[in-house]
Amino acid sequence: MFEFVCQQECAHTQARAGLFHTPHGTVATPRFMPVGTLANVKTLTPEHLKAAGAQMILANTYHLHLQPGEDIVAAAGGLHCFMGWSGPILTDSGGFQVFSLSEMRQISDQGVVFRSPHDGQIIELSPEGAIAIQEALGADVIMAFDECPPYPASREAVIQATQRTLQWLERCIVAKQRSDQALFAIVQGGVYADLRRECAEAMVPYDLPGYAIGGVSVGEPNRIMHEIVAVTAPLLPVHKPRYLMGVGTHLEMLRAIAAGVDLFDCVIPTRLARHGCAIVQGQRWNLKNARFRRDYEPLDPTCPCYTCRTFSRAYLSHLVRAKELLAYTLLSIHNVTELIRFTQAARQAILEERFAAFAAEWEQRLVVDAEEPDAALL
Amino acid sequence: MFEFVCQQECAHTQARAGLFHTPHGTVATPRFMPVGTLANVKTLTPEHLKAAGAQMILANTYHLHLQPGEDIVAAAGGLHCFMGWSGPILTDSGGFQVFSLSEMRQISDQGVVFRSPHDGQIIELSPEGAIAIQEALGADVIMAFDECPPYPASREAVIQATQRTLQWLERCIVAKQRSDQALFAIVQGGVYADLRRECAEAMVPYDLPGYAIGGVSVGEPNRIMHEIVAVTAPLLPVHKPRYLMGVGTHLEMLRAIAAGVDLFDCVIPTRLARHGCAIVQGQRWNLKNARFRRDYEPLDPTCPCYTCRTFSRAYLSHLVRAKELLAYTLLSIHNVTELIRFTQAARQAILEERFAAFAAEWEQRLVVDAEEPDAALL
Repeated sequence: MFEFVCQQECAHTQARAGLFHTPHGTVATPRFMPVGTLANVKTLTPEHLKAAGAQMILANTYHLHLQPGEDIVAAAGGLHCFMGWSGPILTDSGGFQVFSLSEMRQISDQGVVFRSPHDGQIIELSPEGAIAIQEALGADVIMAFDECPPYPASREAVIQATQRTLQWLERCIVAKQRSDQALFAIVQGGVYADLRRECAEAMVPYDLPGYAIGGVSVGEPNRIMHEIVAVTAPLLPVHKPRYLMGVGTHLEMLRAIAAGVDLFDCVIPTRLARHGCAIVQGQRWNLKNARFRRDYEPLDPTCPCYTCRTFSRAYLSHLVRAKELLAYTLLSIHNVTELIRFTQAARQAILEERFAAFAAEWEQRLVVDAEEPDAALL
Repeated sequence: MFEFVCQQECAHTQARAGLFHTPHGTVATPRFMPVGTLANVKTLTPEHLKAAGAQMILANTYHLHLQPGEDIVAAAGGLHCFMGWSGPILTDSGGFQVFSLSEMRQISDQGVVFRSPHDGQIIELSPEGAIAIQEALGADVIMAFDECPPYPASREAVIQATQRTLQWLERCIVAKQRSDQALFAIVQGGVYADLRRECAEAMVPYDLPGYAIGGVSVGEPNRIMHEIVAVTAPLLPVHKPRYLMGVGTHLEMLRAIAAGVDLFDCVIPTRLARHGCAIVQGQRWNLKNARFRRDYEPLDPTCPCYTCRTFSRAYLSHLVRAKELLAYTLLSIHNVTELIRFTQAARQAILEERFAAFAAEWEQRLVVDAEEPDAALL
């Protein structure tokens, strides 16, 4: 029911192009996955997502448990029916959100107790609970419940979180009942390469249908994140998809692809859109900038998205300035398309055995941008 | 270039079905026109509008003059290019907005002086100015600059406003230069039937390509509005389109169609959507209502819109409760479709010579709803 087929490996890097088969369709990797936290990718319809090239999308266990509750989703026939998305869906376990969003949390080996930000109610989330919720939601891929240490965190704190994550993984595997869902483990270990290695090596023997790298992009310097990904990804099974959680930007994805990562998710394209920003060839443009007021070019003349085919930068700038909600939809259409296209282009380069050149060209372009504050207008 | 062809007249009412030909396409009347004040129909893409059955849409002279300025729209090639709408467009003259929205206005025979709510700048708007702006915007139909008296207003005040509207109409006709735009006059006269008659009779000899009834739906009781429309519409030329400005609801449109009105506009479908409300068969439903939480039916099983084909009331209720922007897009898609469909159904009934029965059935249904507060959940 789940299978990852590696189609092509890069001769010069760890990059690979693959096909991840799920009950709701195939994901051609590397691939960016748009985030639909509350069972919708903010401002986008499923039609928009399909046109943007989305294959697998995310939803979130923590958010959906609080609102509307997994029983309401289950009674609709599961997430696919509820949100009108017939393609593959992945639900995050809620671990990251419990640790980053909720107040008054108490962590024990049993699980986490926290106060609902909606109604103040006391909520418990455990490995068994997270699996039960995800089985009710019915995504194709479900994630193990993990403890995600913050950055910075002491070595001792990270050791404890990693140990707990391993124990919780075992309990998730025991708790899981549905055979039509793939459970992915999440490798933790903070910024400590040896702890990452230990965690990965302890998880691989479970022979799960996929592995994620979690606990990155939580505030650590980019350089450290790239190192951790480069150390961790090659430790994961070759014949299983590798998913880097919460990432991201062109440069982060490019380097992770070179390290052998297949799947990505990030709220950045829709969040930037809601701040009036477009991502164009890896640059961030603030459409409020005066230079766009009379710029009648499309955002990116090479982009096939509806926004670029239909509207000018001047029009988008007008909508952003006027705070029209349509601006956020049109920018989200473009930004999501842009990130998916970037991973599609990387995939194509791998398939055509020219990924090293592709990566070198983009690396140069993106690093120059990052060093020139003028280029990134945010 | 502009022609109104009456296809069928109702034998029992003043209702008629027609075709209004414009340079950017034909409008099959009666027809509801979605409002795109700031060169966008809030939360909807042109693709959504087309799918909803929109033919002619509105934009607003007052708003676009202030933001982004007509020069920016003109440099894009006009409104059609700027906003990506290839069908007919009508621009309101800004008269209504100057009188209802702006502060510190001074009215004289010359025109209106007011303070921009954006930057406090002093702005002048005159008949000549309103025409020049509308010629720069480039809509198919442009509206004469009028003085719209409030409700209530003394007979003397309404006489003065109506006289001024007539003088301004003459100046608009003189100022108009483009031959590819149709100028519509706006009949004023407040709630005074004799003043409405005088105004209409004074305007008809100009033989303009269309006539509007303005100054209604400004706070007067519904009964009075229906009377004024019923008195005024039959005074307008049979072979020109008749446009009732700022209306409306099913019941208001139904009665106006019976009085011989062809075109309508109203912000209600998109405004209600942004308040989490759906219009279903003329009823208003607040999706936050508890009864929708586990209601897995489409909003309206008979509605062909994307929202009704794809999502349940439970999903929409979830999005509204979670304040997700997508809720407003999905409800706007449905609400705009609903109002256009209603006018399409009226048109079909006229063409099939069964409008009297159609009107009686809807009248009964809508009046019952209006009298039963439970039915309208707002």
